[in-house]
Amino acid sequence: MPVHGLRDDLDFRSDNVASVSPAILEALMEAGRVGAPAYGADTWSLALERRLGDLFQAEVAVFPVATGTAANALALSALCPPWGVIYCHRLAHIEEDECGAPALFTGGAKLELLDGADGRLEYNLLAAALAAAPVGVSHRMQPAAVSLSQVSECGTLYRPDEIAAIAALCRRHGLHLHMDGARFANAVARLGCTPAALANLAGVDVLSFGATKNGAFAAEALVFFRPDLAADFRYRRKRAGHLLSKQRFLAAQLLAYLDDNLWLANAAHANDMASRLAAGIAALPGARLLYPVEANEVFVTLPEGTAARLEAAGVGFYRWGGEDRDTIRLVAAFDTAPAAVDRLVALLAGSLDERGNSA
Amino acid sequence: MPVHGLRDDLDFRSDNVASVSPAILEALMEAGRVGAPAYGADTWSLALERRLGDLFQAEVAVFPVATGTAANALALSALCPPWGVIYCHRLAHIEEDECGAPALFTGGAKLELLDGADGRLEYNLLAAALAAAPVGVSHRMQPAAVSLSQVSECGTLYRPDEIAAIAALCRRHGLHLHMDGARFANAVARLGCTPAALANLAGVDVLSFGATKNGAFAAEALVFFRPDLAADFRYRRKRAGHLLSKQRFLAAQLLAYLDDNLWLANAAHANDMASRLAAGIAALPGARLLYPVEANEVFVTLPEGTAARLEAAGVGFYRWGGEDRDTIRLVAAFDTAPAAVDRLVALLAGSLDERGNSA
Amino acid sequence: MPVHGLRDDLDFRSDNVASVSPAILEALMEAGRVGAPAYGADTWSLALERRLGDLFQAEVAVFPVATGTAANALALSALCPPWGVIYCHRLAHIEEDECGAPALFTGGAKLELLDGADGRLEYNLLAAALAAAPVGVSHRMQPAAVSLSQVSECGTLYRPDEIAAIAALCRRHGLHLHMDGARFANAVARLGCTPAALANLAGVDVLSFGATKNGAFAAEALVFFRPDLAADFRYRRKRAGHLLSKQRFLAAQLLAYLDDNLWLANAAHANDMASRLAAGIAALPGARLLYPVEANEVFVTLPEGTAARLEAAGVGFYRWGGEDRDTIRLVAAFDTAPAAVDRLVALLAGSLDERGNSA
Amino acid sequence: MPVHGLRDDLDFRSDNVASVSPAILEALMEAGRVGAPAYGADTWSLALERRLGDLFQAEVAVFPVATGTAANALALSALCPPWGVIYCHRLAHIEEDECGAPALFTGGAKLELLDGADGRLEYNLLAAALAAAPVGVSHRMQPAAVSLSQVSECGTLYRPDEIAAIAALCRRHGLHLHMDGARFANAVARLGCTPAALANLAGVDVLSFGATKNGAFAAEALVFFRPDLAADFRYRRKRAGHLLSKQRFLAAQLLAYLDDNLWLANAAHANDMASRLAAGIAALPGARLLYPVEANEVFVTLPEGTAARLEAAGVGFYRWGGEDRDTIRLVAAFDTAPAAVDRLVALLAGSLDERGNSA
Repeated sequence: MPVHGLRDDLDFRSDNVASVSPAILEALMEAGRVGAPAYGADTWSLALERRLGDLFQAEVAVFPVATGTAANALALSALCPPWGVIYCHRLAHIEEDECGAPALFTGGAKLELLDGADGRLEYNLLAAALAAAPVGVSHRMQPAAVSLSQVSECGTLYRPDEIAAIAALCRRHGLHLHMDGARFANAVARLGCTPAALANLAGVDVLSFGATKNGAFAAEALVFFRPDLAADFRYRRKRAGHLLSKQRFLAAQLLAYLDDNLWLANAAHANDMASRLAAGIAALPGARLLYPVEANEVFVTLPEGTAARLEAAGVGFYRWGGEDRDTIRLVAAFDTAPAAVDRLVALLAGSLDERGNSA
Repeated sequence: MPVHGLRDDLDFRSDNVASVSPAILEALMEAGRVGAPAYGADTWSLALERRLGDLFQAEVAVFPVATGTAANALALSALCPPWGVIYCHRLAHIEEDECGAPALFTGGAKLELLDGADGRLEYNLLAAALAAAPVGVSHRMQPAAVSLSQVSECGTLYRPDEIAAIAALCRRHGLHLHMDGARFANAVARLGCTPAALANLAGVDVLSFGATKNGAFAAEALVFFRPDLAADFRYRRKRAGHLLSKQRFLAAQLLAYLDDNLWLANAAHANDMASRLAAGIAALPGARLLYPVEANEVFVTLPEGTAARLEAAGVGFYRWGGEDRDTIRLVAAFDTAPAAVDRLVALLAGSLDERGNSA
Repeated sequence: MPVHGLRDDLDFRSDNVASVSPAILEALMEAGRVGAPAYGADTWSLALERRLGDLFQAEVAVFPVATGTAANALALSALCPPWGVIYCHRLAHIEEDECGAPALFTGGAKLELLDGADGRLEYNLLAAALAAAPVGVSHRMQPAAVSLSQVSECGTLYRPDEIAAIAALCRRHGLHLHMDGARFANAVARLGCTPAALANLAGVDVLSFGATKNGAFAAEALVFFRPDLAADFRYRRKRAGHLLSKQRFLAAQLLAYLDDNLWLANAAHANDMASRLAAGIAALPGARLLYPVEANEVFVTLPEGTAARLEAAGVGFYRWGGEDRDTIRLVAAFDTAPAAVDRLVALLAGSLDERGNSA
Repeated sequence: MPVHGLRDDLDFRSDNVASVSPAILEALMEAGRVGAPAYGADTWSLALERRLGDLFQAEVAVFPVATGTAANALALSALCPPWGVIYCHRLAHIEEDECGAPALFTGGAKLELLDGADGRLEYNLLAAALAAAPVGVSHRMQPAAVSLSQVSECGTLYRPDEIAAIAALCRRHGLHLHMDGARFANAVARLGCTPAALANLAGVDVLSFGATKNGAFAAEALVFFRPDLAADFRYRRKRAGHLLSKQRFLAAQLLAYLDDNLWLANAAHANDMASRLAAGIAALPGARLLYPVEANEVFVTLPEGTAARLEAAGVGFYRWGGEDRDTIRLVAAFDTAPAAVDRLVALLAGSLDERGNSA
């Protein structure tokens, strides 16, 4: 590791490949050195709920879990009956990357996949789907919830008024609104608004408040802004095996994450690295940014063959839309070194000739 | 914290209230300081499977998860169809303490509760239940698995030949054998046999190899001794939200746990503390040990009113069999200080007069 | 078939082996000869709800289904969350004969098996279980419902005040009360009270009102006395595949079943045949009635070897408590001929010598 | 009812609104008049399996159930793990009309919706989906089965070679092939091939062989052409509440349905009525047939306002694609009178002026 704990390798596959923030590791050391009451009766866990209540300036019920999949699917199980329909973007993590966890925890609910440019659920399509929904028809699954990803799977953002509009639509149709905030920090850091402005004030009922992709080891907090929806949640969490006996492992991470605004500093750095990368790429002939770069992810379409050359050079990334494609996803993390970004841009430049062809 | 990191408080509620072993914390620091491939492709995770294969001298498939409930219920889901019957002791953790997780992950299997002295499933009762089982009758759920807890919920042990006899019964009836080894280390330490002798060599198909109660922060390893049974397991784990992106968090703990036989040293200490406690109690008039003390748990029946006095004195324990009972469970952990045990015995002695009545 | 459509064979295995009441067959012919709106919008289905409302003198929500298992398990799914505990007698049909249907439809609820003489859940044991229930403890499944079988699996009855006492206990603990009334008619016919006295007036929330064992082809009506509990029930029924397109098949049977009190006449006849059989058996040396004969089932313990001789003579019955036992269950149906009962008694008498040994 | 038992009303909403074939009613009377062994041990049920084996000239395992939803969803549960993906046409009954039954019975599988002209799953789209499927990736649900509707939801047919091509694709990718044959009879009648040619010989693994829409009261037969896939099926059926105690109710209907080729005669008549209707409509200016009329369903796009006028005239039909649309579905049944068809055409003609506008 270089100075300041930044990673200067070329692994841009995901913010999941990152290290853990030193302050969070330190907090874990501290929490692990001593004994404490089990199952969330410890001081860390008790403090966390208050802390998140303060952060969102609201009465909240908080349930930390170890993974984003658990956070999302358990949240949906509290919002949706087994015959419910959850509307989400076609690329949503709950559809693409959770191996059916929402169906398991809800007992059978389905995801209705909607389109929308740049990975963002389009209001009009949602409105049309809800207007056409067969409410009250026994043969049909029933509209129950909407799930938004903030940041979206394409690295783009919803503004507060966009969330509020969707939330109003939900209320009009009697649906709950969930937000998958695995990268919520990146959104707050970029938009410069309060966390509440992107969540409860905009009408979100439950937020998966992510930390794992932004400095934690394994910690996400489910934040219910309507505690009544969480009345039975402790049973849902426990029967899913997601109540740790040493819950302070989760709470200690999240407290350190919130301390001194570490979460926002980490996210801002990741966002900056993605901007730096995007700026570098924009200057290259032949490389095309697929989506606006609004958080810490950069999607680039390259001339055929370029992706393979980058792989050969040791750059880590995922292909986007299929293994044979030259569209790639590059993700910056809280610990990405500027030098790594610059090296990647240089490698890319070297792979393209001046006409933007694969060199 | 006193010298040597031992806890000298009087919290004997559970080995869950313990601290985390320094070596494990150190391993977490190391694993967290650097980036690594996600979802178990990291070097820690890859090493862990080999290490456990070596430990059990067998081909194994290993899946670390963060909780014992997840380990047990996911294991059972790989062994049992939705209409399956899982035979276990009436007091088993899967029945008493997992809020229905086995039913969730198996899709509906039921636990058939059997008796047996000292918390140990009795061979004859199991044999009778299986002999009477309505195999092939459509109306009846079908025998599918047996789950043993080693250490049992009463702090007692199964010997290798006892496990082997039950395993042979399972094979004869076409059932799988699961072992809930949340305190497996305590059993190995006490019996002085190899881990294999209590698991695969005795006929166990899948072992929940616990670490959380014995020094880890949150880590259990599911060890399949029949890797064919684990063919689909990665989907089961993922859809349950139990695949961490930074799986090295789990693997690093478990590797440190195995290094230098830390797991056995920790367990031996906990066992010793329980023995010390039991010896102290046995000498007291009026206090009666409920079960043989074979691992790290001590169950004591006290004169009426004594439990309340201990509580008032700040001793932590659980009542056994009901909140109004004076039978209590005392659990020693890897970090329990001898001085704490001695203080507890002294407090007990002071609570009883020479005739063994509540003083 | 003899005069009056009575069956004079010796098949006493179950009231399931009976024929279908001529009036019900006639109603089916009529309902089948014409077209009608699908999925319960037909006149039969609409009339049925009113008719059952009149019968119970209450506002009811009615859902006819084709099997008792569907009726029971779907009812429980409306009363009980996936982490719920349903208290029932150890011998209850939902435990013994439904292959886990309650777990499937509730999404994981468990049955807590209680004892009680003569197949009847004992109030004191239920009260003790509820008093000890770990309400609010995350680790434990939560008390949710009680299910009574009227007639019980041992052919015995609950009186109105007994049901009311259990219902009061349920209300005190926040549980719902379900009644498996597969043989509800037999209970009403025997006790001579109103249906309401054994159901809603006694505090039952949902009744599986059986017809299949008492003259129908395949029809049970779920009767919700608290229609609020049925708000979502149409989705539960449909997703379980239990909404017929020609729902009038179910409703027509049930209407004919209620017309002219056919249901009570049928049940009274079956009860009478069981009494006749019990009286005949009581006079035999060596045969012992196991339970009071209060409805249409007779349980007899015979000298060793007698059951095999009866089988050889062509008598149909089930062994009770194991295939090697000489305790047998004999079930009379609405179409059992007195002559068949008398022949069975004669066969039994011929199988026993004057000292009550197997002759 | 007119001569020959044909219905001359104008209810074209569905073949579900039809009567029951007299021969089937007669068979029910016969089966109901006598007692018989329960749960499928009766002679009707035993004969049915042989009869369907003969019909398909194959070894089959047969499970009759009362509804198409039960048949489809239970079949899929035998073909697909809880994390499985079932590929089907976007309009498939299992997606649109079963309220999530496949997810309930499979324990969570999802439907992947594919397009295809005229309601028929397009081979190329399926091939592309399977080629892109993330096989072996833990995060993704896994391809497991394809379900085809024969007749499709648009009243169109798959030819034997089309089914065979899809079946070959399934085998190549390790998927099972299910056919929803709610209107299988209509397909066989129209194509003039053997039933086997459209099912097992073409590579179908399990067929939902429908009868309810074509003359039965409530009966569908699940026909497994790979009996190994049905090894556990009896438990699946029972725990879903779909095993009738008087299973002969189902078998008797199905036997009568097959006797004297009633099933094909019924289907041929329904098909003829649809053709007659289509021919009448094709001659009308302004009305446009939406799909080829290959079975018993006719989809027509009418000038705005026409549908409302037909409704006012007492014609029964469903709007297609939304309640405000003038595209309607008209379904002929086995008991539709030619006179009713002619009256409908006349009404339609009267609603349109010579330029094809709403008159």
